[in-house]
Amino acid sequence: MRLATLRLPNRTTAARIDGDHAVEVGAPDVGALLADPRWREVAAAADGPRHPLSTADLAPVVPRPGKIVCVGLNYRNHILEMGRELPEHPTLFAKFAEALVGPYDDIVLPAVSEAVDWEAELAVIVGTAARNVSAEQAAACIAGYSVLNDVTARDYQYRTLQWLQGKTFESSTPFGPYLVTPDELEGVTMTMRCEVDGEVVQETDTSDLVFGPAELISYVSRIITLRPGDVIATGTPGGVGHARKPPRYLADGSKVVTRIAGLGELVNVARRDA
Amino acid sequence: MRLATLRLPNRTTAARIDGDHAVEVGAPDVGALLADPRWREVAAAADGPRHPLSTADLAPVVPRPGKIVCVGLNYRNHILEMGRELPEHPTLFAKFAEALVGPYDDIVLPAVSEAVDWEAELAVIVGTAARNVSAEQAAACIAGYSVLNDVTARDYQYRTLQWLQGKTFESSTPFGPYLVTPDELEGVTMTMRCEVDGEVVQETDTSDLVFGPAELISYVSRIITLRPGDVIATGTPGGVGHARKPPRYLADGSKVVTRIAGLGELVNVARRDA
Repeated sequence: MRLATLRLPNRTTAARIDGDHAVEVGAPDVGALLADPRWREVAAAADGPRHPLSTADLAPVVPRPGKIVCVGLNYRNHILEMGRELPEHPTLFAKFAEALVGPYDDIVLPAVSEAVDWEAELAVIVGTAARNVSAEQAAACIAGYSVLNDVTARDYQYRTLQWLQGKTFESSTPFGPYLVTPDELEGVTMTMRCEVDGEVVQETDTSDLVFGPAELISYVSRIITLRPGDVIATGTPGGVGHARKPPRYLADGSKVVTRIAGLGELVNVARRDA
Repeated sequence: MRLATLRLPNRTTAARIDGDHAVEVGAPDVGALLADPRWREVAAAADGPRHPLSTADLAPVVPRPGKIVCVGLNYRNHILEMGRELPEHPTLFAKFAEALVGPYDDIVLPAVSEAVDWEAELAVIVGTAARNVSAEQAAACIAGYSVLNDVTARDYQYRTLQWLQGKTFESSTPFGPYLVTPDELEGVTMTMRCEVDGEVVQETDTSDLVFGPAELISYVSRIITLRPGDVIATGTPGGVGHARKPPRYLADGSKVVTRIAGLGELVNVARRDA
């Protein structure tokens, strides 16, 4: 099953994607849908108003997650190519919900930053509350997967030792287009690719994660309760603009395509904030 | 005006403190109250059911802030005594709402950490949305002040370069007892003190902050929109247990009193998680 959040003239709605249509499922967004413990049945059985997908205006798939937990340094190939050792524990930081934009919205380049970079990531969306769960138990808490670009203002990220301020600029982070449930992904190699102005800048198999989705949910759940709609952004592989020589950043008009096989793609244009 | 969130048998309520009583103001908690642009008038005029304060069960004053932005390394005396230079920019990190507990609740010591430490802090609660505001404009966006103890699992804080995981353990962070509006604090020296088992471990004048409340709101507002109910924890002064030789941490049964003159006090007992 594929779920999305649609913007309609005076409201938003969660919808199930049926072929080239989106079918309303009776909740204002995918986050609200997931708060219903019967969300799978409700969404599968829904038969609400239909909207053609080709003209749909998509919001961030979960517009206001209670928590967005981001993971740093989590791709094996990237860590090894940097000459570092594989980490013993995941590096976690936060992003606030106001940073999110829809899958086809503009990425706002903040007026105060000159160094905005891309970070293609596999996002995991929690479907069942998780507290002190094992990795085995955690797998059953996953509602589904989506695509997120953890767009980062490098100058702000490195202003201090803590990355938050470079990671949470308003309207910087595209997220969507869909929540894809795990049953749709059996046998799929979730290859991730990021293109900037048509050039492939990042490409990896998301199975190369040091800490995979279930392991991350288990780890975080020993710290704090994960709730339906919470999001874990699992980290980015090599190929970011900041690591290039010379570094390359997003400019006004840059087109960023972030794609994961089986999940769909984000298509966003960077626009300098007025 | 002083506001609190009370736990009642089947609900919570925002209340105005009138002497030794709490008067319901018609919102489920202080966060919901602040979402009403007319909150000052509504709260001042309210004449709902009254509850004796002596037996009131207080929740975190804002139980579910949309954002909790914490500040590190922000006391001038502490930075200078450590031989460091004053920072050019505030160090920001996040805490999630599930970390909060009420002003008299137990602090839960996580089963997985052996190094839980205290950090007394002045908390600023946002009352008006703030985006790209100057420090002068920011002052008018402050709803009021409160007390927060940014209880920290040092072992998890330093597991990786990012502090989040040591800062956001479930039910670790007392917050309250009241939101005190700025007009009540004119001429008050907001001296802050933290006592552990009766021993004064931290004591400072909160005016010694490098980045004060309005400056912090201004800074954060250039990154992301601050909304009513959002909280900024402004940082802790010297005297934390981790910096002692040998280090000292909270144990099962440790009593922590965190007090700011003019704002009231948090009284919490640390309890090891089962």
